[in-house]
Amino acid sequence: MISRVDVAAAAARLAGVANRTPIFRSRTLDERVGADVFLKAESLQRTGSFKFRGAFNAVSQTDAGGVTAFSSGNHAQAVALAARLTGKEAVILMPLDAPAAKVEATRGYGAEIVVYDRYREDREALGHALAEERGLVLVPPYDDPLVMAGQGTVALELLEEAGSLDAVVVPVGGGGLIAGTATAVDGAARVFGVEPAAGDDTRRSLEAGERVAIDVPRTIADGLQVTAPGRLTFEVNRERVDGVVTVGDDEIVDAMAFLFNRMKLVTEPSGAVGVAALLAGRLDVSGRIGVIVSGGNVGLARFAELVGSAAD
Amino acid sequence: MISRVDVAAAAARLAGVANRTPIFRSRTLDERVGADVFLKAESLQRTGSFKFRGAFNAVSQTDAGGVTAFSSGNHAQAVALAARLTGKEAVILMPLDAPAAKVEATRGYGAEIVVYDRYREDREALGHALAEERGLVLVPPYDDPLVMAGQGTVALELLEEAGSLDAVVVPVGGGGLIAGTATAVDGAARVFGVEPAAGDDTRRSLEAGERVAIDVPRTIADGLQVTAPGRLTFEVNRERVDGVVTVGDDEIVDAMAFLFNRMKLVTEPSGAVGVAALLAGRLDVSGRIGVIVSGGNVGLARFAELVGSAAD
Repeated sequence: MISRVDVAAAAARLAGVANRTPIFRSRTLDERVGADVFLKAESLQRTGSFKFRGAFNAVSQTDAGGVTAFSSGNHAQAVALAARLTGKEAVILMPLDAPAAKVEATRGYGAEIVVYDRYREDREALGHALAEERGLVLVPPYDDPLVMAGQGTVALELLEEAGSLDAVVVPVGGGGLIAGTATAVDGAARVFGVEPAAGDDTRRSLEAGERVAIDVPRTIADGLQVTAPGRLTFEVNRERVDGVVTVGDDEIVDAMAFLFNRMKLVTEPSGAVGVAALLAGRLDVSGRIGVIVSGGNVGLARFAELVGSAAD
Repeated sequence: MISRVDVAAAAARLAGVANRTPIFRSRTLDERVGADVFLKAESLQRTGSFKFRGAFNAVSQTDAGGVTAFSSGNHAQAVALAARLTGKEAVILMPLDAPAAKVEATRGYGAEIVVYDRYREDREALGHALAEERGLVLVPPYDDPLVMAGQGTVALELLEEAGSLDAVVVPVGGGGLIAGTATAVDGAARVFGVEPAAGDDTRRSLEAGERVAIDVPRTIADGLQVTAPGRLTFEVNRERVDGVVTVGDDEIVDAMAFLFNRMKLVTEPSGAVGVAALLAGRLDVSGRIGVIVSGGNVGLARFAELVGSAAD
């Protein structure tokens, strides 16, 4: 089980490497929510999401000359940049049908891309064979103590700058960000997770008291399309998280539009679920509320397609 | 002629009132420009643009119980919020056909809106009559020493955080932001303005050595649709600005798309002209370059309409 000391150690490693992302406020948001809301914009983190923190914390601690990861999303770019900054090789396994923009971004950080056919090949077997053959260390997207501790640094910064908070609201996919957050917060505030309604595996698991698997959820929040909580993340979250609520895709879109129009921030669907939960009244909170806006990696065409109808 | 002392005084008044907006960097931008670029994101300023700084500096220094302004744009919201924060009344004259979102935003800051028919009524005469009748002080959008000095605080913060710079690149409409910038920079860096190609009144005026008026320019950069430099701003800019370059509307759109995709920032056309000039190679600069991204007030529908075809 990770501790606050692990998060502090991660913060020391990330100092001067990760962006200390800004915190934004909005009078309109405060009025609509009935609380003082502090948005921590990890969309403005290097590689466009909080994933860089955990990836760098893990990659910088391995002695191996190279790392590998399976990801078509934010974790791929995070591992690629972390490897580049630490002088290591990065080999990222991506499905053949991954968006060209994400492949290009990952390659742009200096990673070698190995593509596989997601309908015919087993990426885990491929990845392990590759790691063995080339002496690479696999960096998991969330189920890893160093990754969780790295993600917890978001909350450390939030508490340092916003001062004491009554609650912190966090997007939940595999559970790494909220595990790090709850560890960093260490009881000083309540910690609530937000999942897409279709992908509430962590909510169900907490209710059941054990890890529950669901089908691949249909949701626009592609970063949160996880079928079961991680083993290590669930151990942490079961003890330290105060609750998980869910939001519908339409509520996510409304939050993305709000963040664009009122706060001038580009947010991907997964990044907007915390704001969505507050705007939709899913959380019974008051006082001072921190919200992690976890990422901004969404192409313009996709953004316009999703949010166009919510334009004001 | 305003001095660096006036800018410092404005900074003292704005401390704790204006956002100290973040500065962003992008490796991709640096590579494309061939320089170290520091973007000062005034799109994240209160009311969504730098205009709040000048407006607050002016409004806070008047003894009158109320203020007025003519504007359908960023200045309207800036004056409205400045008045609210200083406990003054604000009456904003807006054309009947102003975008509903802008009218609502201005009213949302507590201002009274007086509409006029821009085809049949003279807003200046209306404004002066209103000011006289109700004892209001008119806050000009740029041609005012306190307004110019307030805008200069953007550059003060930029220099404080980025360290020494070789050049600062600034959007030019009426010339208030660049006049404040050049005054704040005070010879420590070269200062370049950027205008839309169709609206190059300041470029022409600097070339001619006197204020030149042009027809109302057709450009997507609605915040820079000015027909002649201000009298006071031109006096400052003639002495202190190193040059003005222009960008086409297509180049502005490319910059908006870049800022969205790569930097997760929502920028209005006028706010993106500095980045547009750098990406289009209009400025022969190297070393350390500061760029003021001046505003982000653009509706989602309009943004998608403008930038949709540039999506990557």
